[in-house]
Amino acid sequence: MRAAVMRGDRFVVEERPTPRPGPGDVLVKVRACGICGSDLHYFKHAPEIIEMAAQLGAPTEAMERNLAAGPVLGHEFVCEIVEFGADARRDLKVGDRVASMPFVLRDGAPALIGSSPEIPGAYAEYMLLSEALLLRVDDDIPDAAAALVEPLGIAVHAVNKAALSPDETPVVVGCGPIGLAVIAVLKARGFAAVVASDLSPKRRDLAATMGADIVVDGGRDSVIAAAQARGGRLVVFENTGAPGMLHRLVIEAPAQSRIVVTGIAPGAESFLPMLAITKELSFAFVIYYTAEEFAEALDLIRRGALNWRALITDTVGLEGVTQAFADLADAERHAKILIDPWMRA
Amino acid sequence: MRAAVMRGDRFVVEERPTPRPGPGDVLVKVRACGICGSDLHYFKHAPEIIEMAAQLGAPTEAMERNLAAGPVLGHEFVCEIVEFGADARRDLKVGDRVASMPFVLRDGAPALIGSSPEIPGAYAEYMLLSEALLLRVDDDIPDAAAALVEPLGIAVHAVNKAALSPDETPVVVGCGPIGLAVIAVLKARGFAAVVASDLSPKRRDLAATMGADIVVDGGRDSVIAAAQARGGRLVVFENTGAPGMLHRLVIEAPAQSRIVVTGIAPGAESFLPMLAITKELSFAFVIYYTAEEFAEALDLIRRGALNWRALITDTVGLEGVTQAFADLADAERHAKILIDPWMRA
Repeated sequence: MRAAVMRGDRFVVEERPTPRPGPGDVLVKVRACGICGSDLHYFKHAPEIIEMAAQLGAPTEAMERNLAAGPVLGHEFVCEIVEFGADARRDLKVGDRVASMPFVLRDGAPALIGSSPEIPGAYAEYMLLSEALLLRVDDDIPDAAAALVEPLGIAVHAVNKAALSPDETPVVVGCGPIGLAVIAVLKARGFAAVVASDLSPKRRDLAATMGADIVVDGGRDSVIAAAQARGGRLVVFENTGAPGMLHRLVIEAPAQSRIVVTGIAPGAESFLPMLAITKELSFAFVIYYTAEEFAEALDLIRRGALNWRALITDTVGLEGVTQAFADLADAERHAKILIDPWMRA
Repeated sequence: MRAAVMRGDRFVVEERPTPRPGPGDVLVKVRACGICGSDLHYFKHAPEIIEMAAQLGAPTEAMERNLAAGPVLGHEFVCEIVEFGADARRDLKVGDRVASMPFVLRDGAPALIGSSPEIPGAYAEYMLLSEALLLRVDDDIPDAAAALVEPLGIAVHAVNKAALSPDETPVVVGCGPIGLAVIAVLKARGFAAVVASDLSPKRRDLAATMGADIVVDGGRDSVIAAAQARGGRLVVFENTGAPGMLHRLVIEAPAQSRIVVTGIAPGAESFLPMLAITKELSFAFVIYYTAEEFAEALDLIRRGALNWRALITDTVGLEGVTQAFADLADAERHAKILIDPWMRA
């Protein structure tokens, strides 16, 4: 099979053996896979990420082998069942389209897809999934929509962790795919006044398309001030990961604000605890989702709660991955780019 | 009246006019006042604190006047009613002992006691309080116990903000007066396994006296590892304010830990958001209490839930304040020192 393999500063389409499903596994054909911000981060910073993990005493052996072997990334996928491994329950059937959290079960424990040479990801024609984790994708959901279940699951989780009360005002700082998905989830949950900001006009347009009620140019105006004008305690979703943003939020946020962080700043960040304590701020750092939240994201897609057509700005084949990674740096042109491994450039 | 006035690197006992109670005010005689960690912090860093406030755009006029005039600190007090101002409701009577949150109402808004020349604190023989905020102190509660209501209120608030579930394990890092009060509140709430750490043997003894079930030498062993051995998700109360402690907790804490911060680090602190996000940590910075929490603290004192005799390590007169501030640097000798403004050195 063909796979887009990360080799230094580019992706190279290589021939790899099609995986064989073991007990509990299912061989699936990849129909579409989104490029995630964390993929961009790993592409740019893999050696530093591994070094930081090592400094912190985490096991890095699999990460090092993966980088040396040429990682096959891809964890935002929609697939089609091709073949069951031994001992399959077969609640679904060959040809069914499926979503799954990006893990496979190995010795009963979840192992992250794309994080070792043994568990390659969805930047390829085929991959293995665990039968126990599969969710069927209804026939009327297009592949492009189903590929967004994973980032939408993160947004569902972020909004759940925020546990907003009706008198609180949600503020979405940074309208990349996660920020836009957070807006969609907040609107699906019925919040009347969602305030959002981004530096990019294109992203601000997308924020409005997703349902944001007030959209602010973060480079010119204070989204905090705009939200305060709405009243209520603020719950800020920080999705930029921009260096200095946490410090800035500690300074700008009014007392009792709660800050939910999905944006991954690359290095150390500094802030003033004295100010955070005087204002009684709180921070919740979030990244994953539960199985229930992942299923809820699929249900939101089914119900049409996410304007996926606006979010997806391009689809490329495996040969187009290197260019797509470069293109995603331009917020004016792109939000989410999908990979269709069967498309020939 | 006599007051201990902060003058640069010492406290000078000066004669000040006894305040006159206006409408809604009550003139009270100070029976005892605790020295708070924030008083120590202000004594050492007042100019930097004001400069930081100015940099952040906060109003500093009253702070500057207070520092120039010679601040009278003191917000952990128990007092006795001497005289009512005009329009008093007189639910209490002259001679009653009272506690109060450290605010007076001015034009309907709370103004912090000790923060301006107009509202001096309890390092003095007399002060003004607001009748509407007074809580009567029962006759069988000694002055020394009642003076601890304020720091205990912070601990009640910190534990409430933590909103622990029964399967979570509380961890108390730093056993100064606030950490010790947090232990007392956790035990009063029925938590079976409270794990605590401090660098000082004396403070560790006090932690055990307050009811901590496992006490760790923080300089030698990991309190996080000790708590993990108990199982359950960790809720860490960080009461040290030690530089680097937040960074260390981000590194050491297991996934899903929640960190409640009462310790005020003096300057900027740096940490790794990528690690906080991977572990889904959360931070709640806390400082105050509600009126209900303050009243609950008085009730805990009434019910004997705080071993106040162990906490109070000395009582000094106004002439002894400078020495007491120096002595409090030695964790081996002291936890809480009270000022009795009527004691002659």
